[in-house]
Amino acid sequence: MKHSLRAIKGHGTENDFILIPDLDAVLSLSPELVRALCDRHRGIGADGVLRVVRTERATEPDVRAQADEAEFFMDYHNADGSIAEMCGNGVRVFARYLHQAGLAPEQTSIATRGGSKAVESIGEDISVDMGPSTIRRERPMVSVGGYGDSPSIAAIDMPNPHVVVELPDEASLSALDLCRPPLVQPPLPDGQNVEFIVRTGPRRLRMRVHERGVGETRSCGTGICAAVVAIADPAEATGEWEVDVPGGRCRVSWTATGSVVLSGPAVLVGEVDLDEDWVAAHR
Amino acid sequence: MKHSLRAIKGHGTENDFILIPDLDAVLSLSPELVRALCDRHRGIGADGVLRVVRTERATEPDVRAQADEAEFFMDYHNADGSIAEMCGNGVRVFARYLHQAGLAPEQTSIATRGGSKAVESIGEDISVDMGPSTIRRERPMVSVGGYGDSPSIAAIDMPNPHVVVELPDEASLSALDLCRPPLVQPPLPDGQNVEFIVRTGPRRLRMRVHERGVGETRSCGTGICAAVVAIADPAEATGEWEVDVPGGRCRVSWTATGSVVLSGPAVLVGEVDLDEDWVAAHR
Repeated sequence: MKHSLRAIKGHGTENDFILIPDLDAVLSLSPELVRALCDRHRGIGADGVLRVVRTERATEPDVRAQADEAEFFMDYHNADGSIAEMCGNGVRVFARYLHQAGLAPEQTSIATRGGSKAVESIGEDISVDMGPSTIRRERPMVSVGGYGDSPSIAAIDMPNPHVVVELPDEASLSALDLCRPPLVQPPLPDGQNVEFIVRTGPRRLRMRVHERGVGETRSCGTGICAAVVAIADPAEATGEWEVDVPGGRCRVSWTATGSVVLSGPAVLVGEVDLDEDWVAAHR
Repeated sequence: MKHSLRAIKGHGTENDFILIPDLDAVLSLSPELVRALCDRHRGIGADGVLRVVRTERATEPDVRAQADEAEFFMDYHNADGSIAEMCGNGVRVFARYLHQAGLAPEQTSIATRGGSKAVESIGEDISVDMGPSTIRRERPMVSVGGYGDSPSIAAIDMPNPHVVVELPDEASLSALDLCRPPLVQPPLPDGQNVEFIVRTGPRRLRMRVHERGVGETRSCGTGICAAVVAIADPAEATGEWEVDVPGGRCRVSWTATGSVVLSGPAVLVGEVDLDEDWVAAHR
């Protein structure tokens, strides 16, 4: 087999990614190739592609302006070939790769289209400063299969939009039918991810999430942060929270300046050398 | 990254597999490792694992007895960790690998738990002699979401059990709801795959399939053969049929002795070197 493209597969709480090291930004990563790589049957399969590029080689001025604080840029492509700003699970996997490849120390910053993000390896986990949250005025009603109507406890920008619903117990959470999108009335202007949460202990939640345009997912980094921001009262908002999602466990805390910090696992599965003919057929 | 296991990802009409070359049968491939490899978020993702072993090194006597006619054994593991006999799409991908790796010529035989299978590379496609079909006496009724009740046109052993339903047009085929298993009355003793087909031209079908224990799949090799056997009248049963499934196109023909021959694409996507720590965590 002749190889023409090297990639790394990894995941954070089962939100999975294909990293493509392209430090000098010489690859052309077409939407067609991204879709084929992320296709779980024709390709390798992932929720998105993270190209690893030196920040100074990025074409976007807003990204290149981060070169002084962050040596590497996470060029994030969704599985459908579109471009995305940031991903809380993706940036942890990205940081794990940089560290394991000897490209960055345990504490570093990563450039993204949503600004540069401070990351840190702590034991098995990697933490990322997700920035401040904004609580919106709206508290839309949410109607969901398997439960019915419920007022949300908050709508949060993280900075992407979230609506959080608290359920009374784990049985209600398990019984939710998230095959179809929950109905949010009135919807937020750009749509929303919807998080369903249950308190399972002091500073502990269990959560399921429906991501806009995707469906139910195993995990959502910004959603985990939004859920904790929504439910934590001022007395609880200083400590560390644990959130269980179908794909694993993350932790959420705050910096002294009010930034939300997401910590959790970041696993590298293996290196993939893509076949030359396969790549040529999907360019 | 330290590597500890090499694999190849490939697919036939989007039925996808992880091949593990282990010619001298030294690996222990635990059900846990198979499940982790096939997990589409925690691992690489596939419908099954095909271990590549020299037939003479196989532990099963029925397999080792094929060593004179077939140098390599396709040791097939389902994604759930169980063992399987044969797979019409898998054996084509297996043959593609053997040929590309220089381990076998274009025409060869492959040992399987279902007996040795003759395969041949013809241009882009690989054909496999799937053996004879058996038409059962039963013609069960099938009830399916989005269509209703319909008598099957045949029940076929290939040798795994299939029930074939003909629909009047492509709109009916598209409208089927295969999220839940079709209800078959009376069911075959060991359950059944159910194929829904529409004639789209002379010796041409379009098909969707619900595989027992799995759900709707992009393709099913034995199902494609069963569908053609079910619908071909004696005058048509000598030529070559084309069958379109969601994952691509296959062809079906017969040998002079009545064996059913399945031909179709077999694509190698890339080579995967699995991370040592990841493998250790899933042994």
